[in-house]
Amino acid sequence: MQDLNVIDLIIAKREGQALDADQITALVVAFTSGKVPDYQMSAFLMAAFLRGMNEEETYAMTEAMWRSGITLDLSGIPGVKIGKHSTGGVGDKVSLILGPTVAACGVVVPKLSGRGLGFTGGTLDKLESIPGFRTRLTIDEFKRELTDIGLVMAGQTGDVAPADKALYALRDVTGTVDFIPFIASSIMSKKLAEGTDGLVLDVKCGTGAFMKDESGARSLAEMLVGIGEAFDKPTVAWMTDMNTPLGRAVGNWPEVVEAIEVLQGAVVPDLVEIVCTLGGEMLRLGGKAGTTDEGFDLAHEAIVSGRAFDKFVQVVEYQGGDVEIVRNPQRRESAAIAAEVHARMRGFVTSIDALAIGRTVMSMGAGRVRKEDDVDPLAGLVLTKKPGDRVQAGEPIARLYTRIDSHLESFSEAVSNAFEIGDEAPLPKSILLDRYSDGAWLGAQAAAELRSLQNLRPA
Amino acid sequence: MQDLNVIDLIIAKREGQALDADQITALVVAFTSGKVPDYQMSAFLMAAFLRGMNEEETYAMTEAMWRSGITLDLSGIPGVKIGKHSTGGVGDKVSLILGPTVAACGVVVPKLSGRGLGFTGGTLDKLESIPGFRTRLTIDEFKRELTDIGLVMAGQTGDVAPADKALYALRDVTGTVDFIPFIASSIMSKKLAEGTDGLVLDVKCGTGAFMKDESGARSLAEMLVGIGEAFDKPTVAWMTDMNTPLGRAVGNWPEVVEAIEVLQGAVVPDLVEIVCTLGGEMLRLGGKAGTTDEGFDLAHEAIVSGRAFDKFVQVVEYQGGDVEIVRNPQRRESAAIAAEVHARMRGFVTSIDALAIGRTVMSMGAGRVRKEDDVDPLAGLVLTKKPGDRVQAGEPIARLYTRIDSHLESFSEAVSNAFEIGDEAPLPKSILLDRYSDGAWLGAQAAAELRSLQNLRPA
Repeated sequence: MQDLNVIDLIIAKREGQALDADQITALVVAFTSGKVPDYQMSAFLMAAFLRGMNEEETYAMTEAMWRSGITLDLSGIPGVKIGKHSTGGVGDKVSLILGPTVAACGVVVPKLSGRGLGFTGGTLDKLESIPGFRTRLTIDEFKRELTDIGLVMAGQTGDVAPADKALYALRDVTGTVDFIPFIASSIMSKKLAEGTDGLVLDVKCGTGAFMKDESGARSLAEMLVGIGEAFDKPTVAWMTDMNTPLGRAVGNWPEVVEAIEVLQGAVVPDLVEIVCTLGGEMLRLGGKAGTTDEGFDLAHEAIVSGRAFDKFVQVVEYQGGDVEIVRNPQRRESAAIAAEVHARMRGFVTSIDALAIGRTVMSMGAGRVRKEDDVDPLAGLVLTKKPGDRVQAGEPIARLYTRIDSHLESFSEAVSNAFEIGDEAPLPKSILLDRYSDGAWLGAQAAAELRSLQNLRPA
Repeated sequence: MQDLNVIDLIIAKREGQALDADQITALVVAFTSGKVPDYQMSAFLMAAFLRGMNEEETYAMTEAMWRSGITLDLSGIPGVKIGKHSTGGVGDKVSLILGPTVAACGVVVPKLSGRGLGFTGGTLDKLESIPGFRTRLTIDEFKRELTDIGLVMAGQTGDVAPADKALYALRDVTGTVDFIPFIASSIMSKKLAEGTDGLVLDVKCGTGAFMKDESGARSLAEMLVGIGEAFDKPTVAWMTDMNTPLGRAVGNWPEVVEAIEVLQGAVVPDLVEIVCTLGGEMLRLGGKAGTTDEGFDLAHEAIVSGRAFDKFVQVVEYQGGDVEIVRNPQRRESAAIAAEVHARMRGFVTSIDALAIGRTVMSMGAGRVRKEDDVDPLAGLVLTKKPGDRVQAGEPIARLYTRIDSHLESFSEAVSNAFEIGDEAPLPKSILLDRYSDGAWLGAQAAAELRSLQNLRPA
């Protein structure tokens, strides 16, 4: 490639021109190798943010970031490998349930996760709240576990998409984070490096998600699926509601406990519905189900039969986690302080603000303000009431766990404020909003029919 | 001032919000002191470039840059001090003639100039082509000379507006140069630091200028005057044509020679007209003329009488220049090579492309591609024909001076190509296009009446 004139590229983007794939590739490569300084890259990022990037540019950026590091070669491992990614939300313990469920049905699930930052949690922090559980695996360990039990849940290594890491660090301090082509290429550069055969995405939408509004979430889903398909990776995205925390538990160990309860058969409707729907997609992509509906049933059956929980115990054991605690989570020490939050009035819970809950749980010690912060694995809360539930004044609506007793009152008040209580029960609504693949949205109505728990054939 | 959240400021500007003056000031101060890194500042600059900056923001940026360094205190020097600035063009030796002319009429002229870069020359390089002429003066020397002879022509020191220097260096490598609020604040931060009582600006417009089109030049003039007036500095801007090189000479020493010729009474119409018009404004602002028209006459009289030339000789002598050579410039050695360019056909010169001439003269050794390049003081050219002149095929149209004899043929060809020769004489037009002050344009017609040499009362 000839000499790169970075200033010309910045000016072209500033003037709203589209660059060609070679130019984007050269720029990312030169930045990653230190030949383009931060101050030029940040000017380019801002110009792209404000002038836009088309699909070709976004695909080229994704590929350049992905190819900046290693790509896992999973071709030697038997079975079809399907990946899953969530854009992150409050109480999102789906991966903990979904991985074992899908693996129990014979599709190989190589799950690489990140840590939480800000008000959203990370699967890695949740896994590490299990005493002894190792998330730092070598590539050999990773492959051996996949071969042996068809499931692995580990952390991303620095060798995957280092260009994304460097670019994200720069975006984070230059006001260029929330731009869909950057978000999509960042996510997909890591997912493409994982070497799976297909990908199921959970694009969250609402106060507790990165994407607050539906139009943004739809654009992101379309871009993510477009990138996957551009690189011949069958990809499906579900847009799911994140205005309310998912399930009842928020916080690392509390979420693991809830995941275990669901794997042991507890019916937490929103959680089970999303797990079986995304699981149905993964089983269809993995060739174990002819349709997503059929996959939904298979996933549900794996949970009900206990096979999914067995797989979970197997993965915990394989990665050094305390199996006894996982089998009997109630035996574990609770956090120093547990407090109850009570309803201020009688009526029906009409909403619980996911963002407010996420922020409060972070303040309680469960999350990070900065990357280098430690998290308290036991901190968090359980929502004992959810939207639609009837409450009496003074009745418990949530239980808090934290070591920061000096702020207990303000945590209680914040959680109480996150609840809205009204005179009438809200209309029941599913968190599964719509589905995108093959260049088309399914439509909310058809999506509702596809996913409902009520469609389950009698066991 | 409270803690500066730079990311918030970047995002606010990215979203098109106006910042308040305190925020802009804090940002510039923090950047200049190294507390805000280049990569954040460049993201801010690009966001401002694409989202715009209003007048309040531009004024605040100007003031913060200006106050980052020293302000000359000229209050102890008798007389009214008036500054002049040109946005730069090809063959622009106006300052060399204007300073002595205005000073000869009793207005004090503290002229600080910069070096040339690219196809435009700099007054400092021109002055330094006079053997012995010192442009690096201490503040005390500067003030003493102003007190003694009412005129000084020197280089800007690094102590003037260092924030502008740092910001310009960053803009230069991040594609954020040509944005009017940045250009205007950069110019005015230095002019305000010079401590004059008023300011006359020459905003050039055309192929050989920074501003290629009239609407850009008008916006820049309005912004420059607005800044001056915001800081209670009476300011006038003339928009002048820069599609044709100014006068006949282009290059450092060749331009000094032409300036001397004009000061000795040679009639180079465009040059004399612009000098007397800008001089008229300076004399009016300096209280020596009631109107610009009256000032025009005074300036012309100072030239015709030889008093302006005497003042020029005085300043050359004061700053250590070779007075003998200035009195008899034709005695100086010429460049190693002199070549003539001949007309390709007969007809009338209809135009001479200032940009092409500027670039060619730079290639001939007279200008800089990079800041650290040396210049050849003797290199340059003289246009022996100008638009409106009749030419015969083969007749000389320009004389070149260069030491780069290996490229002489290509220089000749480039100069020849810059000439357009047609069948009919072009309509005569003045280079003085319009005048802006007190929030209003004068209008081309009124400006034409104000400035014309033909308005001169009979001597």
